[in-house]
Amino acid sequence: VSEWSKIARLRTILHHSGVPVGIGDDAAVMPSLGNTITVDAQVEHVHFERAWLSLTDLGYRSIMTAASDLAAMRARPLGLVSALTLPASFSDEELAELAEGQRQAATMIGAPVVGGNLARGQDLSITVTAVGDTSRPLLRSGAEVGHWVQVLGDLGLAAAGLSALRVGERVGAHVDAWRRPRARFDAVLTEASAGIDVSDGLLQDLAHIAHASGVGVALETVPLCTELVSVANRLGRDPLELALHGGEDYTLLVCAPTLLPGFIRIGTCVAAKGITLNGKPLDTTRGFDHF
Amino acid sequence: VSEWSKIARLRTILHHSGVPVGIGDDAAVMPSLGNTITVDAQVEHVHFERAWLSLTDLGYRSIMTAASDLAAMRARPLGLVSALTLPASFSDEELAELAEGQRQAATMIGAPVVGGNLARGQDLSITVTAVGDTSRPLLRSGAEVGHWVQVLGDLGLAAAGLSALRVGERVGAHVDAWRRPRARFDAVLTEASAGIDVSDGLLQDLAHIAHASGVGVALETVPLCTELVSVANRLGRDPLELALHGGEDYTLLVCAPTLLPGFIRIGTCVAAKGITLNGKPLDTTRGFDHF
Repeated sequence: VSEWSKIARLRTILHHSGVPVGIGDDAAVMPSLGNTITVDAQVEHVHFERAWLSLTDLGYRSIMTAASDLAAMRARPLGLVSALTLPASFSDEELAELAEGQRQAATMIGAPVVGGNLARGQDLSITVTAVGDTSRPLLRSGAEVGHWVQVLGDLGLAAAGLSALRVGERVGAHVDAWRRPRARFDAVLTEASAGIDVSDGLLQDLAHIAHASGVGVALETVPLCTELVSVANRLGRDPLELALHGGEDYTLLVCAPTLLPGFIRIGTCVAAKGITLNGKPLDTTRGFDHF
Repeated sequence: VSEWSKIARLRTILHHSGVPVGIGDDAAVMPSLGNTITVDAQVEHVHFERAWLSLTDLGYRSIMTAASDLAAMRARPLGLVSALTLPASFSDEELAELAEGQRQAATMIGAPVVGGNLARGQDLSITVTAVGDTSRPLLRSGAEVGHWVQVLGDLGLAAAGLSALRVGERVGAHVDAWRRPRARFDAVLTEASAGIDVSDGLLQDLAHIAHASGVGVALETVPLCTELVSVANRLGRDPLELALHGGEDYTLLVCAPTLLPGFIRIGTCVAAKGITLNGKPLDTTRGFDHF
């Protein structure tokens, strides 16, 4: 039976010795699933086109984008399950490539893929659930007036990469930024008061924090890396626009009373609602809306 | 923003006071996620057509089919996350109907929907991850020669219902059996040695247990309920065929040294590999293969 052979192959690639009951039974059993859970989906023709990345990249990406939400909750990752919808034409070799990317990402964050589901479907899609543990969840709602708004890592480069992929570019740091995002479990968030990962664009994700915390934000600077400026120029795009509204960076955006290690300060939480950049109001309704 | 209003609506319908951090942050936080995790998907045009069931039924079904795997692991359910892929035409009212069905099923099994994901897609699909806890996982691999093979509840009626829906029938216990399966957390599985939920058909799921446990199975009887016989006759189908190969019953199939409360004995685990019915070999490669 074809499904049995697919599952056997996935079990071989994704096997992890620390999982008491892994792929192949009704459910997976772990020593503990922790207390934090999130799910994220990558849908063909919506989030990606097959021409934009290898199946290994896609598998890698599917794990990192889901796990990124755990990082934003100040949780450490414990395990993942992967539900795949595969078109009829999807071969066992293609499945192995996809699983290999998932294995790479899972190894990098130190949390195994313990189970999943296979279904047939018209378009390829990957839905990854990530579980983790935190003794002190970092919510969107904890920012206070006076806290510093700060980001870890580049903004806009993934969106620049996506724009470039759409017009046929296939190599460069920008397309890699989109293809291989990194869940930021390296961040030291002990002093953070609020946090979110930048998936929908800086401004929209900042609006989530501002709304949940009941504060406004005065942005003082938006860091633009040289690679972003160079790609934006080549594509005829505004780098600031990409940094403000481009999504899928999967870096962390946090607020804290002090500057956190490795973060760059970009603004301050203020009492007046709304988000401004150097005093000028910004439109927070733009960015990646899924609907 | 349309996504914000959708999430606000889901939060209202699915709110549960026992969840420390529910829908609306990067991830959900529970007191504990337990140790058991599984995921299941319902994909339009693959697992269902919209004409076959209401969106409330579909939401209900999406929770129960996922949770059923926890029941088969002897785990109690603790929580669920729901990843939805919605076509452009899917209205907020339709989303509310779907969520209402999820709420009903979640209430019935006593485990809240704590989070999820929204994505756009061509076909409607619902991927539910269920987490639970067990101190003694019930695997497929524990059956021993001499153990009794037994089932809890009717076989084949859901498949009869699906057959009937395909030819335009819209009412009856058989279509309800397909539309509203029930995860069997009521089963007392203390003495069970192996278990699985019947999702792919009795014979194929029995083959999973036989293969994992390294035993054969001598079936002595296959219970046929009167409703199944009646529907099968009306549809010109063989009721035994539906009971052996029809999937989606979501009842439990277990092995144990003794008869478990409420179960019906259908056979015995034997040393000779393969599955027989009254001594006649059965073809275990049939049933619902997802590929």
